[in-house]
Amino acid sequence: MRSVLLFYLSYLLCLCLGIVCVVFVCYWNNTWRGGFAWDGTALQFNWHPVLMVTGLVVLYGNAAVVYRIPLTWGQNKQPWKLLHAGLLFLAFFLSVLGLCAVFDYHKKGGIPNLYSLHSWLGMCTTVLFTAQWVLGSGAFLVPWSPMAFRKILKPVHVWMGSVIFVLGIASCISGINEKLFFALKGNTNQTQPYSKLPPEAVFANSLGILIVVFGLVVLKILSNPEWQRPEPGPDDESSRPLLRE
Amino acid sequence: MRSVLLFYLSYLLCLCLGIVCVVFVCYWNNTWRGGFAWDGTALQFNWHPVLMVTGLVVLYGNAAVVYRIPLTWGQNKQPWKLLHAGLLFLAFFLSVLGLCAVFDYHKKGGIPNLYSLHSWLGMCTTVLFTAQWVLGSGAFLVPWSPMAFRKILKPVHVWMGSVIFVLGIASCISGINEKLFFALKGNTNQTQPYSKLPPEAVFANSLGILIVVFGLVVLKILSNPEWQRPEPGPDDESSRPLLRE
Repeated sequence: MRSVLLFYLSYLLCLCLGIVCVVFVCYWNNTWRGGFAWDGTALQFNWHPVLMVTGLVVLYGNAAVVYRIPLTWGQNKQPWKLLHAGLLFLAFFLSVLGLCAVFDYHKKGGIPNLYSLHSWLGMCTTVLFTAQWVLGSGAFLVPWSPMAFRKILKPVHVWMGSVIFVLGIASCISGINEKLFFALKGNTNQTQPYSKLPPEAVFANSLGILIVVFGLVVLKILSNPEWQRPEPGPDDESSRPLLRE
Repeated sequence: MRSVLLFYLSYLLCLCLGIVCVVFVCYWNNTWRGGFAWDGTALQFNWHPVLMVTGLVVLYGNAAVVYRIPLTWGQNKQPWKLLHAGLLFLAFFLSVLGLCAVFDYHKKGGIPNLYSLHSWLGMCTTVLFTAQWVLGSGAFLVPWSPMAFRKILKPVHVWMGSVIFVLGIASCISGINEKLFFALKGNTNQTQPYSKLPPEAVFANSLGILIVVFGLVVLKILSNPEWQRPEPGPDDESSRPLLRE
């Protein structure tokens, strides 16, 4: 009982922190970076942090912990499988849109792509996320995937899920840091330099710390063996792939 | 048998990657950043990445996996406890020295401290590492620490150990990214800009990716339940705190 209560407290914290992260990244770009557009200017770039934090961190993290909700353990697994896959598809879609925002902005502004460590790490994360989504869907949703393949893939899928999440967070941290050095040069009247810690810098640094705290809450939920959905027996209908139903 | 072989292969990979990371960070700063000194110039700053990567990542990671070596399970735990604590003390000492290098360089150059997200995250990591070392030594090395306290602290100690390691890696990634933007401005004849990916940028980006791969190998070793040292019974001498012996 105490463990269940502790789960729901952690889950509530995870939901609240996720919402706060999305609000913070939107507020930052709307208030200090001029808002949003899809016109090849810096306003298009502003979609990049918003979509990556929302997709790769917040939606992804929430999708990862779906199976841990004790309320769902007595129920058929299939709707939760669909929710897990659906949330991850949305996370993937937003991340790809977030990449399109920055590639298109670079293209129109003649800015080179993929040179910083942030971009290298971000691309590794996206490639792994793509492979994870394709393999995961193939194994756990498609009816003709062999049971042996699913059994081998499951621990790899769970482990890679956490790896991609951690890499996504490291990419976001290095990206926010990089963006603040770019934006807060202090060579215009509009902004103070980053080194003087103007309100924007304090706010965006806090966003970075909040993302890390959100990540730790998600990883704590994932790592607690008491909060893992009990494994079904071999005849349990929920162990069947979804589309055979 | 297969599990033990797989462990030693992973451990060998962990040792080799750790050495490669240290060699890379030294080579980067020696070849492209002018080498090392302790004189308040940029050459003193160069100690910062070297000491943080060596202490907070490589030594820390190696200290974390010490208990996982199956060869040691039949032996008295005490020497391995001392090795774990000793390696972590060395990791802590190098990290603090790495912080001194950058604070002293900033002080002599009139550069502000602790404004970037990298520095905020790095300070959080160091504060947690300090607390972990003090509490860990107090609980597991000091003779008069109550058994109940040790039992409560152990899972927290293990979890916080991984958290600090991940935060250390995220700090290093954001730090290397930040340093390359600072160093490779391309406004002198000496360096091409970061965006043109000169050899230094490729090399230091690769260091960042290697650090991440090293981190994943360590976390994989830590997370495999088959590779955990078997828990001693209540009368087992190795469960006693070290200094009572």
